[in-house]
Amino acid sequence: KKTFRVAVLPGDGIGPEVIGEAVRVLEVISKASTDVEIKLEEHQFGGCALDATGHPLPESTLKACQEADAILLGSIGGPQWGVNLKVRPEQGLLALRKALGLYANIRPANFASDSLLDNSPLKPTVAQGVDIIVVRELIGGAYFGTRKEQGQAPDEDAAWDTMIYSVPEVQRITRVAAQIALAANPPLHIHSIDKANVLASSRLWRKVVTETLQTEYPQLQLDHQLVDSASMFIVSSPRKLNGVILTENLFGDILSDESSVIPGSLGLLPSASLAGAPSVKDATAADFQSTSGLYEPIHGSAPDIAGQGIANPIGAILSAAMLLRYSLGLERYASAIETAVRRVLDEKEKGGLGLRTTDLGGKVGTKELGTKIVEVL
Amino acid sequence: KKTFRVAVLPGDGIGPEVIGEAVRVLEVISKASTDVEIKLEEHQFGGCALDATGHPLPESTLKACQEADAILLGSIGGPQWGVNLKVRPEQGLLALRKALGLYANIRPANFASDSLLDNSPLKPTVAQGVDIIVVRELIGGAYFGTRKEQGQAPDEDAAWDTMIYSVPEVQRITRVAAQIALAANPPLHIHSIDKANVLASSRLWRKVVTETLQTEYPQLQLDHQLVDSASMFIVSSPRKLNGVILTENLFGDILSDESSVIPGSLGLLPSASLAGAPSVKDATAADFQSTSGLYEPIHGSAPDIAGQGIANPIGAILSAAMLLRYSLGLERYASAIETAVRRVLDEKEKGGLGLRTTDLGGKVGTKELGTKIVEVL
Ligand SMILES: CC(C)[C@H](C(=O)O)[C@@H](O)C(=O)O
Ligand SMILES: CC(C)[C@H](C(=O)O)[C@@H](O)C(=O)O
Repeated sequence: KKTFRVAVLPGDGIGPEVIGEAVRVLEVISKASTDVEIKLEEHQFGGCALDATGHPLPESTLKACQEADAILLGSIGGPQWGVNLKVRPEQGLLALRKALGLYANIRPANFASDSLLDNSPLKPTVAQGVDIIVVRELIGGAYFGTRKEQGQAPDEDAAWDTMIYSVPEVQRITRVAAQIALAANPPLHIHSIDKANVLASSRLWRKVVTETLQTEYPQLQLDHQLVDSASMFIVSSPRKLNGVILTENLFGDILSDESSVIPGSLGLLPSASLAGAPSVKDATAADFQSTSGLYEPIHGSAPDIAGQGIANPIGAILSAAMLLRYSLGLERYASAIETAVRRVLDEKEKGGLGLRTTDLGGKVGTKELGTKIVEVL
Repeated sequence: KKTFRVAVLPGDGIGPEVIGEAVRVLEVISKASTDVEIKLEEHQFGGCALDATGHPLPESTLKACQEADAILLGSIGGPQWGVNLKVRPEQGLLALRKALGLYANIRPANFASDSLLDNSPLKPTVAQGVDIIVVRELIGGAYFGTRKEQGQAPDEDAAWDTMIYSVPEVQRITRVAAQIALAANPPLHIHSIDKANVLASSRLWRKVVTETLQTEYPQLQLDHQLVDSASMFIVSSPRKLNGVILTENLFGDILSDESSVIPGSLGLLPSASLAGAPSVKDATAADFQSTSGLYEPIHGSAPDIAGQGIANPIGAILSAAMLLRYSLGLERYASAIETAVRRVLDEKEKGGLGLRTTDLGGKVGTKELGTKIVEVL
């Protein structure tokens, strides 16, 4: 039996509740499988770690994450750790991304089940068939460039941040986007997003994306959009961006959140942040298998509903599916989870169970939904 | 008779067509008015100027703009002036903004007529009642900070831009937002948007906005949103951001474009870019009157439909209304235009004319719509 170690960071707010269900799913797979064992180990991270140890990312947690094959995270933060604190939970997340070199953030925005179309804020005719995967560079750009705070010399009246990218940084994220595009059949279209009509970092971005794809993946289709146009398309005609949206850190932060509301509830969507990617021309999707990665639902800690057992666990459970796919190389289990989720959501007429948590206008609780998914599985 | 001089820059693509109608409206007002004369003078700007003189912003045009009381612009750019050219039309626009100190970009996103609700990509229940004014800082931030291109020493493999803000820059744009909020009754809510959990420039932004409003406009309501959350709200629950969205240059570029697709056609929306604003605590809206400003519809040059006489002139005509309001201090004429536009769009059952250009699914041409607005006026 092949053994994998997964570090589990439930975090704050509804994090522990939704992660509880994702963990159940992974345990069921581990037990049922004849060739794979998944060892899960919990660690403190985020606001709870800050309260307990003074650091949102304690040494022991970082070490456990570094040694694990993959990390499953709930959500962090809450009103008790406000922007005025010197040390905040999000800093732990940024530090973890940087320490593990998690440079590729992968955020699908699609309908886990067509029955969810009515939950979209967009008209059904506009939302139908939206199937976007945002590939966001996660440890470069303005997030990690040199900066100067107000009050620091020289020029105490000003503050600045540096949006900086180097050729290798853009090459490696482009390769991740290409591998994701190639994993589909037919391969997905790549939409690279920048602000090349104004920013030097965007001009480098555009040039390197173009050259990398032309040289290494000439079979893929590529277009370039300005970030302002892209933010319009996501609302007015999102299918135009179906495929892979490839973009830098700050634009990716904005555009991935914007596209994530199309399916109607943040509770539905998973994400992956990967450290490795194929670095050679003819790499295949299998290269992701040994990639360490952090997996988390995209929703926040939702302190208003924490502890009530009503949070939607689907984002967390689909994150576990991504974990199986990208870090453990267990594609068949990943698809099985995704199919089970679809079944649980689909209308009864379509052979599904039609279950809905409160975020989707229903009454099914976190545990009950998790149980159903496990049963179907 | 008080005389005002307006520099008219028709620009490229559909620019001349839509500006033709806005000019007609201004001429009618000038003729009908007993106390005001508006002198309009055309100048070359954008791609056409680039072709004719080698510069998108020729000296003579800049001079005319500097001497005018206000500027009315159509649209610039087109496929023949692509990103690979060294000198491009947009550079003329950036240079004009900087040269005239147009630091306050004002972009309303609302329904000129409730009859347009069905044109929104959002569900009617989500879009109804959206009434947002984006106030975007226009000559600071990453647009005008120091930058380094790829290929320049040192570190030829990297490129960077600087997002920089100073205290006075944020103070003055905050005051513009406050004056706009105060011009409504009851005053509008201000939503300041930043990325203060990551960026130093955003932390300065948040601090200065807070202090300026607390000290100078304590009667106004203020909240802060992160740019990623704001980009979600604009799609999922845009009414939450009703009022004034106050933000820096790059975030404003993205969020104003995102919100501008809510009304269903870019052809409907105007914009203003202002150089002056009240600099004292108890200034009133009247302080805008002597402010030089650039007014333009938000749509692009739409080369695909240029020359066909089918472009929607409403964005241009409403830009003329903003010009009368902010730069010439002629509020009564501004409101008259806005009322005429509403009448022309409203359904017949509501006493309107129900006219629609092609962008709104109708067949009415640019000139015909302009004529109707002039008639109603
Ligand atoms: C919490 C914050 C620093 C983070 C980011 O901006 O990257 C979050 O918005 C995200 O997208 O994961
Ligand atoms: C043309 C471009 C430089 C410009 C900008 O980014 O400011 C445009 O998108 C706008 O918003 O007016």
